[in-house]
Amino acid sequence: MVLSLSLLTAPSFSQSKGAVYLDDKKPIEERIEDALSRMTLEEKVAMCHAQSKFSSPGVPRLGIPEVWASDGPHGIRAEVYWDEWNTAGWTNDSCIAFPALTCLAATWNPEMSALYGKSIGEEARYRNKNMLLGPGVNIYRTPLNGRNFEYMGEDPYLASTMVVPYVQGVQSNGVAACVKHFALNNQEVDRDHINVNVSDRALYEIYLPAFKAAVQKGGSWAIMGSYNKYKGQHCCHNQYLLNDILRKEWGFDGVVVSDWGGVHDTKQAIYNGLDMEFGTWTNGLNWSASNAYDNYYLAIPFLKQLRSGEVKEEEVNKKVRNILRLIFRTTMNKNRPYGSFGTEEHALAGRKIAQEGIVLLQNNKNVLPIELSKVKKIAVIGENAVKKMTIGGGSSSLKVKYEQSPLAGLKERVGSQAEIIYAPGYESPAVAEQDVRNAKKPEQKIIDVEGLRNEAVSAAKKADVVLFFGGLNKNEYQDCEGSDRKEYGLPYAQDELIQALAKANPNLVVVLITGNAVAMPWAKDVPAIVEGWYSGTEAGNALASVLMGDVNPSGKLPFTIPVSLKDNSAIALGEYPGNGKEQTYNEGIFVGYRWSDKQKIKPLFSFGHGLSYTSFAYGKVNIDKPKLAANDQLTVSVKVKNTGKRSGYEVVQLYISDLKSSLPRPIKELKGFKKVLLNAGEEQVVSFTIDKEALQFFDDSKHEWVAEPGKFEALIGASSTDIRGKVTFELQ
Amino acid sequence: MVLSLSLLTAPSFSQSKGAVYLDDKKPIEERIEDALSRMTLEEKVAMCHAQSKFSSPGVPRLGIPEVWASDGPHGIRAEVYWDEWNTAGWTNDSCIAFPALTCLAATWNPEMSALYGKSIGEEARYRNKNMLLGPGVNIYRTPLNGRNFEYMGEDPYLASTMVVPYVQGVQSNGVAACVKHFALNNQEVDRDHINVNVSDRALYEIYLPAFKAAVQKGGSWAIMGSYNKYKGQHCCHNQYLLNDILRKEWGFDGVVVSDWGGVHDTKQAIYNGLDMEFGTWTNGLNWSASNAYDNYYLAIPFLKQLRSGEVKEEEVNKKVRNILRLIFRTTMNKNRPYGSFGTEEHALAGRKIAQEGIVLLQNNKNVLPIELSKVKKIAVIGENAVKKMTIGGGSSSLKVKYEQSPLAGLKERVGSQAEIIYAPGYESPAVAEQDVRNAKKPEQKIIDVEGLRNEAVSAAKKADVVLFFGGLNKNEYQDCEGSDRKEYGLPYAQDELIQALAKANPNLVVVLITGNAVAMPWAKDVPAIVEGWYSGTEAGNALASVLMGDVNPSGKLPFTIPVSLKDNSAIALGEYPGNGKEQTYNEGIFVGYRWSDKQKIKPLFSFGHGLSYTSFAYGKVNIDKPKLAANDQLTVSVKVKNTGKRSGYEVVQLYISDLKSSLPRPIKELKGFKKVLLNAGEEQVVSFTIDKEALQFFDDSKHEWVAEPGKFEALIGASSTDIRGKVTFELQ
Repeated sequence: MVLSLSLLTAPSFSQSKGAVYLDDKKPIEERIEDALSRMTLEEKVAMCHAQSKFSSPGVPRLGIPEVWASDGPHGIRAEVYWDEWNTAGWTNDSCIAFPALTCLAATWNPEMSALYGKSIGEEARYRNKNMLLGPGVNIYRTPLNGRNFEYMGEDPYLASTMVVPYVQGVQSNGVAACVKHFALNNQEVDRDHINVNVSDRALYEIYLPAFKAAVQKGGSWAIMGSYNKYKGQHCCHNQYLLNDILRKEWGFDGVVVSDWGGVHDTKQAIYNGLDMEFGTWTNGLNWSASNAYDNYYLAIPFLKQLRSGEVKEEEVNKKVRNILRLIFRTTMNKNRPYGSFGTEEHALAGRKIAQEGIVLLQNNKNVLPIELSKVKKIAVIGENAVKKMTIGGGSSSLKVKYEQSPLAGLKERVGSQAEIIYAPGYESPAVAEQDVRNAKKPEQKIIDVEGLRNEAVSAAKKADVVLFFGGLNKNEYQDCEGSDRKEYGLPYAQDELIQALAKANPNLVVVLITGNAVAMPWAKDVPAIVEGWYSGTEAGNALASVLMGDVNPSGKLPFTIPVSLKDNSAIALGEYPGNGKEQTYNEGIFVGYRWSDKQKIKPLFSFGHGLSYTSFAYGKVNIDKPKLAANDQLTVSVKVKNTGKRSGYEVVQLYISDLKSSLPRPIKELKGFKKVLLNAGEEQVVSFTIDKEALQFFDDSKHEWVAEPGKFEALIGASSTDIRGKVTFELQ
Repeated sequence: MVLSLSLLTAPSFSQSKGAVYLDDKKPIEERIEDALSRMTLEEKVAMCHAQSKFSSPGVPRLGIPEVWASDGPHGIRAEVYWDEWNTAGWTNDSCIAFPALTCLAATWNPEMSALYGKSIGEEARYRNKNMLLGPGVNIYRTPLNGRNFEYMGEDPYLASTMVVPYVQGVQSNGVAACVKHFALNNQEVDRDHINVNVSDRALYEIYLPAFKAAVQKGGSWAIMGSYNKYKGQHCCHNQYLLNDILRKEWGFDGVVVSDWGGVHDTKQAIYNGLDMEFGTWTNGLNWSASNAYDNYYLAIPFLKQLRSGEVKEEEVNKKVRNILRLIFRTTMNKNRPYGSFGTEEHALAGRKIAQEGIVLLQNNKNVLPIELSKVKKIAVIGENAVKKMTIGGGSSSLKVKYEQSPLAGLKERVGSQAEIIYAPGYESPAVAEQDVRNAKKPEQKIIDVEGLRNEAVSAAKKADVVLFFGGLNKNEYQDCEGSDRKEYGLPYAQDELIQALAKANPNLVVVLITGNAVAMPWAKDVPAIVEGWYSGTEAGNALASVLMGDVNPSGKLPFTIPVSLKDNSAIALGEYPGNGKEQTYNEGIFVGYRWSDKQKIKPLFSFGHGLSYTSFAYGKVNIDKPKLAANDQLTVSVKVKNTGKRSGYEVVQLYISDLKSSLPRPIKELKGFKKVLLNAGEEQVVSFTIDKEALQFFDDSKHEWVAEPGKFEALIGASSTDIRGKVTFELQ
């Protein structure tokens, strides 16, 4: 019997076992070139743009899988329809919401970043997403930016230190982190076209370091371009940011992904560093005959120019190499783990992060923690005690397995030990639902402001302690993507309510649920203030544990809270929000505490500030040598002692001050921090080792980092304005 | 600095690297027990039922992936909504349609099965489906069964031989084949409740062998229960079929999956062998508050009985072991390939299978192949020349990358060498679209039967040759799941049209596009008849290549085509379609040619029949020994010579006849076949080695297979009625 076996063994079967690109023992660059050599021009171009809201094609012929991305930085977004933003009604996609990144930054604990990244990466992996659209590390420039809650604060060193373990944690799952939004996307107003003018010095010293750390130390496999312009080019296809800095200076070998709808020009998209175009136009359009994705800038327009020879094939090859590298690192990495989803471990990880991130801003008369042996009636006031905060805010909005509200968390914790009475106190107007399919106009309720307030005050008067949960709420203009805040103050007349509550009961605790600084004209009238952040699934438990004293607060502010908006440099000097076309960051490097230090403005609460239920004493600051050679290291150390009655974490901060410099420098800059756990009475030596990198600034004229010989101070503090000691040394 | 690493390394992280279930170097049974030992009761129960139309949960906490199944046997079904049958509007899911399984069976070539299974498995794998809901191997019992086109014909030996490489091919991709529908689902009428009474002998000899081969020789990882009842129990939870036969007798260790909506009783579902329940009620219901899937028989009702202790945990453990085994064999097999999708290779594989499966039933006056040197005008008549046949037919309906119609295939092949004129000749009534979302009532057109026929006859008169493409069309009642055919004859007055065409032009070729036998009252008036099947994406090219003689036809009928319906045993004796509740298969083992042999009924076209453009001469049949010992083998051989002028395949068939038996036996039964390629003039010896398995029958009273000593005949034929030689031997 003669039977042809040819069809089963023919070399025309492209995915043959011997192919280099399928052999994971071969070096990745060889595999990339092998796969590339097998691809048609059409297959290459197809990889460079989306095929649906969150996916882009692989090479079906070669068995190279698709890329599936997912929002967002705080949890894995629910499945949406192929070409609509609405959720697709799946029932397996209720995620764990982790705390917003401001809260993570407020932990000042890289281990929390690692835990966060590992956990959210596991969630992404289980859902078969191979690119997580986060973390966000745009610098907190003004408290009005609607999206600050997604970022890691105002300081480049803090953000750089925190972003690295997040990226590594995510990627340990074979899921790419996609650091965003690169770069200079510091506001939502006019975000899709505003052209940012900034000095090279501020760019390199303030706005780029966290991205550079994510890329170089974190090894991030992806980065997302921002919506705005820089030097007249949109940042998703920007010669200066993507080609010159990211690729050439930093050696980035991952993919550059556009923000959704951030591409505006085929030629620039071809030549200026972009690899993958997502989110351009189209919403449900493909349901009609033609596929709208074919009209993407990097789709047929790109293909035509390649076919005509106007653009060389090497241009698409460059992009495809990066995309293939992403795929080999993720879906085609056979050894990646399987992830896990919606687990108790992840919820507990989120709770732990929140517990370390919640900041005790003020605690006069030791109103906190609440002692149930003394307190028998607790009045909980405020809409934010019950409002779901995992919903809203834009693309980071989540469908969660559950979200425990502050009120629910308190009730669970307190049980029958005390009575909890609740009054909303105020009410935010109803907001249109985000789900377009089910969109209804919000019912216009008439809010009885006075009635609500009277009810709350009445409740407050009856209670032993009053917990007010207010702040912002991720509605439009209230910490939300797409729109900045319109005012620094709290919305919905909360200030008046707080004043009334303060009068009604001296034991008032204001818990702010925000991702931003807010004005607190009532701060001196309120004994205790807590920054509670948007803390995700376990928000209620985390807050209850801190308020009741089960957990000793240890968070520190990752941004300055100025008394008033004019104390912010972007407002004072920086042309915020621009003229609709341009904005010049006239404040330069003087962002956050760098500005208040320079201007000697006393913030309401300083960068790095955060109290504990215990107290810490700092000893003398020591240095291991008085002079630092150019290639040497120097160690600064200080004894820190827990002088209170319970164990607690302290975040010990190292700032460096350049006493004399050829260019103006900030009074001081954060260059080290360590979070230490000290039992009552325990003392530890905390030490920081630095080299000249901690001393340098970016010299615009030379386009290089410079550490000038001369005298420096190392300052050790419990916040940027609570310096406990210092020591001088000299760079030789 | 003391930092707690506990959260990163705590043993509470269930998916720790050391876990046995994650270690693919450990034996699979150890991994199963390890995973099982970590699971909660709720997690176990969740795995036993669907969460959406085509998926069931994994264990998100442990990183055990979900199971995603997909229709169907002929191509990978388009993505549907989570809980609706409508396609979800994805644009990456246009598959290659392979020929329907009757066509595959008609190739009589196991290599084509292997190619088919490998190819469709690759398509499933690329789409991340880990269970393919096919192949179907229910025995063709009556030509009225609407779903015959999905099965492999009337003979258990042929179906058994063809199913094995299909299963192995699919599973070489790390995708489970799910053989269906187990068992006795031989009609669509009353399929969800009809109780089939059948002798054990017929069950074991006719209806079970293909399933047994799929399980024992193919190693199928999954099997699907059928909708109907057997011994009063629905087959999806059937003590006799699933526990006694499948598990105990055959040692099946895969999963038993219900057909969609085939579960009717929690207790039976628990105890009678089912592992996974799919498709019970619910369509879009989960969009409201509650999850309808919780109400599945194997969901909360199961959980309650487990919690109460009424059902022992071992019952759910049994099911979960099977499901975990499936997952370890598929998604958690790190070495599985990546698949490929919609490829040219797959299209060509489909074309190749179709080319080998198309059956030349009759070719008087050598009308075929069409010689373009002589033929200058071709009239193509019939709706099936242009109708999309990958759509419709029920769950096997596909969204294809493309489907080349017969007319398009002919035009491409013929080019400018001849003129092709087309006339529909008849028209089928419009049918409601299957997509519920876009459902429209079909427009009721008035079909001008006479006008269409006159136009066709007029075209036929002008042509040198007439190709009529008719048959059935996968509309309801015309080869479609859910309904049987209402008549044996062709619909839409095709018989009258064919008669008219035959009168108009003597060079008429009737190409039947069906998955079933049809009445052909015009057979003697038509020189050439071709069975073209539903041949998928490349149907048009495959048909054109055979009709034009580029490919020499080699398909053989996998079922008998009787002259009239009364010649079929299920109709004559078998109570088809039953009384609405019961049906007794009174014909017993006498199905297909076994019946026509016994009754000496001459079929219109016999089982195993199929012509070639060349001719084959068979020599004397030889045998290597006259007597066969009980544990020995015997070889039958025959010289076959290509006596024509071109190369071609011949399927040489071996039938065994038991000359004397204690129980009535069929006149003969197929026990071997080989497809050989012979060049013009070439001669080959074709040999078959058999043992007593080929001689045995199933003895009801003893419940065992028996081969009785005595005389047998080995018959060699080109079809079941075209016996070319025979030899006698004796079993000792």
